[in-house]
Amino acid sequence: MTEKIDAAVIKLIQDVNEMTLKRMNEPYHVAEKTNYNDLVTTVDKENERFIDQQLEIIDPGCRILSEEGFGTHNLTSLSGHVWIVDPIDGTLNFVRQHDNFGIMLALYVDGQPTLGYIMDCVNRRLYHGSRGQGVYVNEKRSEPPVSLDLHHGLVAISSPLILSNVHNLPAVAQAASGLRMYGSAAKEMIGVLSGELVAYISHLRPWDLAAGRVLAEELGLVVKSIDGTTPDVLSSNLVLVATTQASEDIAKITG
Amino acid sequence: MTEKIDAAVIKLIQDVNEMTLKRMNEPYHVAEKTNYNDLVTTVDKENERFIDQQLEIIDPGCRILSEEGFGTHNLTSLSGHVWIVDPIDGTLNFVRQHDNFGIMLALYVDGQPTLGYIMDCVNRRLYHGSRGQGVYVNEKRSEPPVSLDLHHGLVAISSPLILSNVHNLPAVAQAASGLRMYGSAAKEMIGVLSGELVAYISHLRPWDLAAGRVLAEELGLVVKSIDGTTPDVLSSNLVLVATTQASEDIAKITG
Repeated sequence: MTEKIDAAVIKLIQDVNEMTLKRMNEPYHVAEKTNYNDLVTTVDKENERFIDQQLEIIDPGCRILSEEGFGTHNLTSLSGHVWIVDPIDGTLNFVRQHDNFGIMLALYVDGQPTLGYIMDCVNRRLYHGSRGQGVYVNEKRSEPPVSLDLHHGLVAISSPLILSNVHNLPAVAQAASGLRMYGSAAKEMIGVLSGELVAYISHLRPWDLAAGRVLAEELGLVVKSIDGTTPDVLSSNLVLVATTQASEDIAKITG
Repeated sequence: MTEKIDAAVIKLIQDVNEMTLKRMNEPYHVAEKTNYNDLVTTVDKENERFIDQQLEIIDPGCRILSEEGFGTHNLTSLSGHVWIVDPIDGTLNFVRQHDNFGIMLALYVDGQPTLGYIMDCVNRRLYHGSRGQGVYVNEKRSEPPVSLDLHHGLVAISSPLILSNVHNLPAVAQAASGLRMYGSAAKEMIGVLSGELVAYISHLRPWDLAAGRVLAEELGLVVKSIDGTTPDVLSSNLVLVATTQASEDIAKITG
């Protein structure tokens, strides 16, 4: 049953991506949400409304948790089919760069990570997969990345965690070969999935993590809260996604 | 006369890029230079040797300053035609990411920034231009970026400057809309040229800065040492490349 849903959702996210790339070069409205660096555009809202409507057709009876709040509000349980939707991840990049943003969807079934989709929009590269069935980039099957250690790898850590010295993370950056910041959970998650980064550490809301978690776990990567616990699907978490080796190296530094 | 040189160098850098993208997927040797995060590969060396040989044919009598040292060593004056060559910028990204690296060439004539070339290798996008003749991305003329302020813009600051709190730069990052780190001067310079970033601040060696400076100055961007002086072409400098407005905003914070 999820095979049919999967095929329909791949088509949906590709269609939404083409709409997004077209809308990027047309006039749209930008508003501040919580702060001058937390933006929402009419494109985020249009995408979310369209995605949520289509998901209700593709997967009748599902419940939806989506960033801008058009889906089911106040989800308190994970029973049944729950879709978690980020209609544009990296809105600031979308507005200022016209690059380095993504669209993310995930299906959790009775709380189990089941289907995940991350679209690298400008490159038209869809990272998608399902539990037990592997991860693909468009049509090509992905190999699990090599479990490189922290010292030889590049890490992405979000800037507030570095600038406020949270959990000794500047020392993690120092111990790595290099520190990267792309400003989009989608792009940074893709970095770890593809082996370009050995770790990504950030404070992530449900829609920032849900899809990446499905894909990362399927590739044998570690996904956990920085304190070692399993992230809660419906809350914000300070999360690490990493190779096994880098995860162990980082735990020695963050304590 | 520089028109003929320019056409030949565009062809040269495109050819070298195709060689580089081909070599990236073949076996090559990686060695550490000063440190585990300062790498050089046989591809860097092959590129540099080829570029230097071709420049001597394209621009007879020129002198060459190139990263891996095959060009003229110990250049102490800038008289005549001096080419400054970075055969692969972002070698760590080349090795670990197969993305986010560049090739950079610049011609300085009697010390004057004259021709500049930055190849965004994987995207096959060549940023090139000459003093007084504009800047192009492949065949398309670039408009000067809007002089956006720091508060509404994204900045790239290299990680050692943030992690060691040099010149109050973490406060610059805090004052911006967001901090980005791509790990390649070529990619970060392109960010400012294209308006995706309002500023880039890093400790740059001659081959990291030479090409970007030609293009940035031609687009009316500010290029200066963080202390306000003009960068020395033959030395390393702590450099700011920014919009006029962002440069003023940053100066208030760095003092």
